[in-house]
Amino acid sequence: MEIGVGLLGGGTVGGELAKRLLEDHAAILAKSGIDLRLRGVAVRELDKPRLFPSRYIVDRPEVLVLMPQVDLVVELMGGVDPARELVLSALDLGKPVITANKELLSLHGPELFARAADKGVSLLFEAAVGGGIPLIRPLSESLAGEKIERVTGIVNGTTNYILTAMDSDGMAYHEALASAQRLGYAEADPTADVSGGDAAAKAAILAGLAFGQWVNITRVYREGITELSTVDMKFAHQLGYGVKLLAVADASSQGPAVRVHPALVPTGHPLALIRGANNGVFLEGPSIGELLFLGPGAGGRPTATAVLGDVILASREFLAGTKVAPRVRFGNGAVRDFSEVETQWYLRLEVRDAPGVLAQIASVFGAHQVSIKSVWQEGRGDGATLLLITHHAREDRHRAAGRDLEKLEVVRQVAATIRVIGASP
Amino acid sequence: MEIGVGLLGGGTVGGELAKRLLEDHAAILAKSGIDLRLRGVAVRELDKPRLFPSRYIVDRPEVLVLMPQVDLVVELMGGVDPARELVLSALDLGKPVITANKELLSLHGPELFARAADKGVSLLFEAAVGGGIPLIRPLSESLAGEKIERVTGIVNGTTNYILTAMDSDGMAYHEALASAQRLGYAEADPTADVSGGDAAAKAAILAGLAFGQWVNITRVYREGITELSTVDMKFAHQLGYGVKLLAVADASSQGPAVRVHPALVPTGHPLALIRGANNGVFLEGPSIGELLFLGPGAGGRPTATAVLGDVILASREFLAGTKVAPRVRFGNGAVRDFSEVETQWYLRLEVRDAPGVLAQIASVFGAHQVSIKSVWQEGRGDGATLLLITHHAREDRHRAAGRDLEKLEVVRQVAATIRVIGASP
Repeated sequence: MEIGVGLLGGGTVGGELAKRLLEDHAAILAKSGIDLRLRGVAVRELDKPRLFPSRYIVDRPEVLVLMPQVDLVVELMGGVDPARELVLSALDLGKPVITANKELLSLHGPELFARAADKGVSLLFEAAVGGGIPLIRPLSESLAGEKIERVTGIVNGTTNYILTAMDSDGMAYHEALASAQRLGYAEADPTADVSGGDAAAKAAILAGLAFGQWVNITRVYREGITELSTVDMKFAHQLGYGVKLLAVADASSQGPAVRVHPALVPTGHPLALIRGANNGVFLEGPSIGELLFLGPGAGGRPTATAVLGDVILASREFLAGTKVAPRVRFGNGAVRDFSEVETQWYLRLEVRDAPGVLAQIASVFGAHQVSIKSVWQEGRGDGATLLLITHHAREDRHRAAGRDLEKLEVVRQVAATIRVIGASP
Repeated sequence: MEIGVGLLGGGTVGGELAKRLLEDHAAILAKSGIDLRLRGVAVRELDKPRLFPSRYIVDRPEVLVLMPQVDLVVELMGGVDPARELVLSALDLGKPVITANKELLSLHGPELFARAADKGVSLLFEAAVGGGIPLIRPLSESLAGEKIERVTGIVNGTTNYILTAMDSDGMAYHEALASAQRLGYAEADPTADVSGGDAAAKAAILAGLAFGQWVNITRVYREGITELSTVDMKFAHQLGYGVKLLAVADASSQGPAVRVHPALVPTGHPLALIRGANNGVFLEGPSIGELLFLGPGAGGRPTATAVLGDVILASREFLAGTKVAPRVRFGNGAVRDFSEVETQWYLRLEVRDAPGVLAQIASVFGAHQVSIKSVWQEGRGDGATLLLITHHAREDRHRAAGRDLEKLEVVRQVAATIRVIGASP
C-alpha cells in the first residue's frame, strides 16, 4: 500500500507538507492504512533553509513528475507556468494530482478537469479555497443534491486581517497593511490580496462548484480594499455594520453573478464575527437553509492539512486501481454581469449645506429608480457629510446615480460608495 | 447512467427525499450527470398521506432490496430491526447503502463497515450526524491527515431548542418541551432526545471518525437535560455563561473519552451562539487550530439534502463499476472512562449561613484535590445559596467531593452540578 509522493514546491505550504509526510508517517498509516512515501520536493531556490531534510530536494520538477516511483503529484508552486504543464503531464501519466493553485484552476480549470476525467484520474484541490476549512468537498459532494442559491464568503485572510485592524484598532489602511506584512500575513507585494484578485479566483471556483457551471475569472467583478477609509468604518459602526471584503456568488435564471468587493455587513451577521486572518463561508439554499463554515483561511499548517486530506483520498482511490469518476462537472452557460444584479449601497457625500440639498440628491436617485432607505447628516455648513443607504436596485442604476450626483452643484464629492450585504430589505 | 433507488422509510426525511428524487430529477441529472430513478418506497403504514405519489409505495422492504432494478438502497426507517438485516442484505448483493440511522451505526458500525469493505461497496451516512451540515465527509476525508484533539458539538436540535427557550424566554423545562412538541421539534416520547441518547449515538460516531477508533455507544457517558432548572440558567447568565447540551470527545494517550452532558459555555464561545434547533460542531487540532460548522441539525429538508449528496456520490462510484476503497477505518483500542477526564464543575449549594461554612466546603474540595476557582453567595440565613466554579480536576474527584459535601451539616443540599466547558483555565 505504498504511495510515492512527488511534491512540487517547498515553500510555506509545501515545506510544511513535506515535514508532515515525514514526521506523521506512522500516524497516517495507522489511521488511514496508507503508506505515504515522500520521493522528492522540487524547489526553485536550492540553498534556502527548509522544514525538511535537504536530501529530498530535487531541482527539476519535470523529472520528479516522470519518476516511476512517484505515484501521485502535489503541486504547490503556484502560478500558471510551469504548473499547468506539470499538472497535465502528471495526469497524462495516470498520476493523481493535488493542487492548491487557485490561479491555475480559475484560469485553466476546464482544461485540467477534462484531462483528469479523460484519464480517469483524481484532480483534487481542497486547499485552493479556504485554507484549512473543508469547503470544496462539502460543496461538490455533500451538497450535490442542493440547488445552492448564494455563496457569501470571507475568503482572503490577509485583507480580513487588515480590515479587522482598521476596525478594532482604528489603524489607517497603510498602517494595517504594514502590520500584516510584519506578521507574515501579507506579502512584500500585497497586490493579489488587497486588489481582490486572490478572492476573485476563489470566488470563481466556489461559484463553479456551487452552481455546476464554470465561471471564468475574467467574469468576476472585482474591487479591492485599498480605497477604504477608517472614516467609513467608523460611520459603518455607528449604523450597526462592520466592513468586510466579501466574495459573493448568486444563482439566477440568467446565470450566476460573481463578485468581490468590500461590503457593510450587519454586526449581527455571522460573517461580521470573523476576525483576523480567519475565513468563513456562508451557503444558502432552499433545503439546507443556511450553512456556515469557519476556520483558518491561510497559513502553512492548516493549508497543508487540507492538502494531506486530498493526498490520502487520492491514494485510497489510486490503490483501488480503477478509473476515478469525475467529481466536478461544469456546464458552460451564461454568466450574469454584475451591473444587472440588485445591490444596496452606502454612500458618503460631502455636501454644501444649502436649502434643498436632500431634495436634489433624492431626485437624482429617483431619476435612476433607486430609492433611499435612510439618510444621516453629520456636521453643518460646507463641511457637512451626508450618509445614505439605498434600497435594493440594479447595480448599474446605482452607478449612474453616483455619476449624476457628482455633477450636482451642492455635492462637493461622492467620497465613498460601499455595497451593503445581508441587511433586512 | 440510470441508477435505481430503493428507499426504506417514507417518513419526514424519506418522504422529502422521495419528493426531491422525483421533482428535482432533471436538475440533478444536469448538475451531476446521474439519472436517479426512484423504484419504490417501503413504508410501514400504507394509508398515511405522503409527500410522493402512492404508486411508489411498497409494503415489503426485503423485496424492494432484492429487486434487480434497485441499484442502491437508502435506509431511513430508523431502529435496529429490521434495518440491520436489510442493510446487510443490500451490501451482500453489492448494492451501495446510504443510511441516516445513528442508532444502527453506533451499535453495529463495525459489522456493517466490515461487510461494506468486504464487498467493495459504499456505506455512506452523512445525514446520521448534524442533519444538513456536512460533517462526516469533512471529518473522515478532508481532515484525514489531522490529529484531531477534540470534537465539541451541539448535535441534538430538540434539546437545543428546549434550552434556548428556557434561556431566552425563561420557560421551565416542561413548558419548553411542550412548545417543542407543538412545533414538531420533539416527538410525543422525547426520551431519546432529552436523555442525551440521540446525542450519545452521534458522539460515538463523531469520535470514531475523528480518532479512527470505534467507540461503542455503551462507553459514552450520558447525562440529559431533564434535571436542568431555569434557576441555574439565570445564575449561569450572571456569570457569563449559557447552558448547552454538549457532545464532547477528546483524544488522550489512554484512548478517546466521549460524553454527552449539559455544560456551561462562555457566552463568547461560538457554540453559545447556536440557537433553536440548529446544530454546530467545533473541531480542534494542532494544525487546523479551530474549525466550526454551523447549520440546520434536523428537519426533513436539510437531512434529505445530506442523504441526496450521499446518493449522488455512491451512484458516481457505482457507475465507475469498481470495488470501492473503504473510507472509514476503525481501530479497536482502549476507550477512556469519563471519570478519569479532567473537568470543571459549576455547583449550586443550598447552605446554612453559619460561621465557617466556606472553610468547611473548601476543605472537602481540598481533601479531593479539587481547587475552587470562584465563589458567589446569594441571599443570607438559611436560604443562602452558594455558587462555585472549580478549577480543572478529575471527574471522579469532583464526584467524590460532591458526595462528601452532601454529608456536611452546613450544606442543606447540593442543588445542581453542571460541567463547565471552554472557559479560560
